[in-house]
Amino acid sequence: MTDSLLDSLRAAVPDLRLKTDAGDLEHYGRDWTRRWTPNPLAIALPGSVEEVQAVMRWAAQRQVRVVPSGGRTGLSGGAVAADGELVMSLERMNKALAFDRVDRTLTVQAGMPLEAVHNAAREHGLEYPVDFAARGSCSIGGNIATNAGGIRVIRYGNTREWIAGLKVVTAQGELLDLNRALVKNSSGYDLRQLMIGSEGTLGIVVEATLRLADPPPPTNVMLLALTSFEGLMEVFAAFRERLRLEAFEFFTDIALRHVLAHGAVKPFDEVYPYYVVTEFAVGDQDSEAAAMAAFEACMEAGWVADGVISQSDAQAQQLWRLREGITESLAPYVPYKNDVSVRISQMPAFLEQTQALLGQAYPHFEVVWFGHIGDGNLHINVLKPEQMAQADFVRDCEQVTKLLAQALKAHGGSISAEHGIGLVKKPYLDSTRGPAEIALMRGIRKALDPQGLLNPGKLFDP
Amino acid sequence: MTDSLLDSLRAAVPDLRLKTDAGDLEHYGRDWTRRWTPNPLAIALPGSVEEVQAVMRWAAQRQVRVVPSGGRTGLSGGAVAADGELVMSLERMNKALAFDRVDRTLTVQAGMPLEAVHNAAREHGLEYPVDFAARGSCSIGGNIATNAGGIRVIRYGNTREWIAGLKVVTAQGELLDLNRALVKNSSGYDLRQLMIGSEGTLGIVVEATLRLADPPPPTNVMLLALTSFEGLMEVFAAFRERLRLEAFEFFTDIALRHVLAHGAVKPFDEVYPYYVVTEFAVGDQDSEAAAMAAFEACMEAGWVADGVISQSDAQAQQLWRLREGITESLAPYVPYKNDVSVRISQMPAFLEQTQALLGQAYPHFEVVWFGHIGDGNLHINVLKPEQMAQADFVRDCEQVTKLLAQALKAHGGSISAEHGIGLVKKPYLDSTRGPAEIALMRGIRKALDPQGLLNPGKLFDP
Repeated sequence: MTDSLLDSLRAAVPDLRLKTDAGDLEHYGRDWTRRWTPNPLAIALPGSVEEVQAVMRWAAQRQVRVVPSGGRTGLSGGAVAADGELVMSLERMNKALAFDRVDRTLTVQAGMPLEAVHNAAREHGLEYPVDFAARGSCSIGGNIATNAGGIRVIRYGNTREWIAGLKVVTAQGELLDLNRALVKNSSGYDLRQLMIGSEGTLGIVVEATLRLADPPPPTNVMLLALTSFEGLMEVFAAFRERLRLEAFEFFTDIALRHVLAHGAVKPFDEVYPYYVVTEFAVGDQDSEAAAMAAFEACMEAGWVADGVISQSDAQAQQLWRLREGITESLAPYVPYKNDVSVRISQMPAFLEQTQALLGQAYPHFEVVWFGHIGDGNLHINVLKPEQMAQADFVRDCEQVTKLLAQALKAHGGSISAEHGIGLVKKPYLDSTRGPAEIALMRGIRKALDPQGLLNPGKLFDP
Repeated sequence: MTDSLLDSLRAAVPDLRLKTDAGDLEHYGRDWTRRWTPNPLAIALPGSVEEVQAVMRWAAQRQVRVVPSGGRTGLSGGAVAADGELVMSLERMNKALAFDRVDRTLTVQAGMPLEAVHNAAREHGLEYPVDFAARGSCSIGGNIATNAGGIRVIRYGNTREWIAGLKVVTAQGELLDLNRALVKNSSGYDLRQLMIGSEGTLGIVVEATLRLADPPPPTNVMLLALTSFEGLMEVFAAFRERLRLEAFEFFTDIALRHVLAHGAVKPFDEVYPYYVVTEFAVGDQDSEAAAMAAFEACMEAGWVADGVISQSDAQAQQLWRLREGITESLAPYVPYKNDVSVRISQMPAFLEQTQALLGQAYPHFEVVWFGHIGDGNLHINVLKPEQMAQADFVRDCEQVTKLLAQALKAHGGSISAEHGIGLVKKPYLDSTRGPAEIALMRGIRKALDPQGLLNPGKLFDP
């Protein structure tokens, strides 16, 4: 059955590169979640838009379900293929195609890693400003599928803001050329925006034209030690008021201890419960003075107990590593990840409620907090005790996620700030989107993909 | 029949304000286009979200088609009710509802005029930066329905960029609360973005939460006289390179003559074929010097023959009036309006082709050009000779629009940069959107509004 199906694919797309080895099926069948057993039909590695189209035409004819696949660094199971799907990996389509100095755009294939996009933009003296720790492995197509956020949203917004045009292959194998980098285009529904964040369920992104920004200003990085959680929003306000913030990231002492155990350099002799790493534009005396003024005001108010400001690029990187190394340092503990957001103004009330909730709910688990305070996004990682079975651990965590989802609903928040819904957050989608919204999403999906071929089971059930 | 239908509406929504006088039917049944004879069933003027929902529930039950209506300043017939539709005017829902200093958002009802939004934002020391000449009459809901652009897109983008949340009433009368001003929210399809620019065909915007910007920097306004069309893009490049541009607008001598005939103050003794009005941030000596350097470079290159820089706010307003007064000064000629865009990089080639095309096509008509060069948007207005019948004039113009649409297609442009498709541009939608795209748009509309109740006939036929 599988063999004859793949034979028909080979016949339909003669030059298509296909992988079917057990190791490949496992490698390409999962993402950074480890909760599902990979079980794809095969891995298709198209080399061109035409091949992606041909594979989709074949899939539509044969009713074969397809999982679009980028760098598979996702944390919500959006790229998992556990049920005989064909994985459509874009990894061979990883080139920059065009740069336009007047439009200030870079056109790239969807499989290009984010870091390669950064480098390509810098070669032209410009910046693609979306950035986060998985930059070396994640692909721009995957970034678009989840509307990736990251550490510079406070200044530059999410991926959505930087997409000037998209080429997308539909479930029927047709090619859409969306918006073509027009600055102004009021000609009906913006399907480009609809595709961004749709997690591969409405079409397969094959190319993107990215807007580029001016190179960032010179910056300094500051690490702050906080004495209590309560002062966090005040510290943010004090810095935002006085400085052009490029990033404002928070983490707890537990997070720091894991990063230090992974080889990072200890920043302070003393131990404090909370830390902030913030990056801000400098370049004139005003901004240096403003940074010192913000720091001193926070010291005087008792919110901040200590601080260090980077004196070199190397030191800036060292400080950043304390925040960026967290995810990697936690990986061995197979953490259960929450990625939630509320309006910035709702943060204090939500934080208070959530702290109380988690303190009660997880007395025996280690909970690691970090997040992007400046855009209302908190990451709450629960670490699996070594002896505990994965299934039991997840079951216990899901009980708490139900409570967390209720708190989010009460505060108008989101169960997924930037990871996407995928498989992991699917049971909680209704905490964030109302029944009428979910019904409309279902209708849109059905309109675009009536056979249900694209990334089946992700986001919501048919 | 009409009477019993309206009786049933009065019974279903007892306190609903309704207008049925002939004068009101004409007033609310059309927008700034004058091509269709207004013929609505009646005008509903709901005072609350609940009333909008109740009217839509009634409409769904009775299969009554509904035209959502804001300031009716549209130029594409998007708010025309010429076929017995119920007009749903949001004009009574025109209040600011909430301001949040931490989130930097302003929540307003959809019927609030743009200028009132500007004023409300400024009361809090912040700015809603989308702006254009119809600000006094147009409503924010209409701005959202067309993703309005205007004169500051080069700096601030279109309406789309400033919408943090939307409340929308569906064809079934359900209320959607979309995105709730979250900065990060990756929880499925972004229906907020889908609604923006959908011209009232997918839902009725009843409330919007707007992001606000820092107050604009101090600026100067400069008027430039250009000797030829060819230098236009070079002048733009010279200014963009050296200054933080807030606006860069172009118009022809014919446009200027109409504005002067309307009472504006003549800027130069000599007559030049083309003019640019540009606004840029100042505040330090650097920017003043940069502006002079840009001006002198353009003079030396022979692109610019004369210029004037504003010495006061009053003079800045006087210079702006030369550009902003164009539409009003042309109104008596019932102009046929083209509102097209291409990528900025495509402008020179497109302009050349279009100039040649229009020169051949309109030897007997007066053609007035102006536009937003910095974002690739050209307005081409053809003036009706006094003696010519409107229908004959439109028929002749449409012949040329067909050619223009072909040129746009060749250059990857759009038949509507900012006015929307409505009724006026509907025959040309396929110059901008491919057949697969239009099929998907049709499917989405059908999924959201299966009975075809919302703004029927606009954008595309069922």
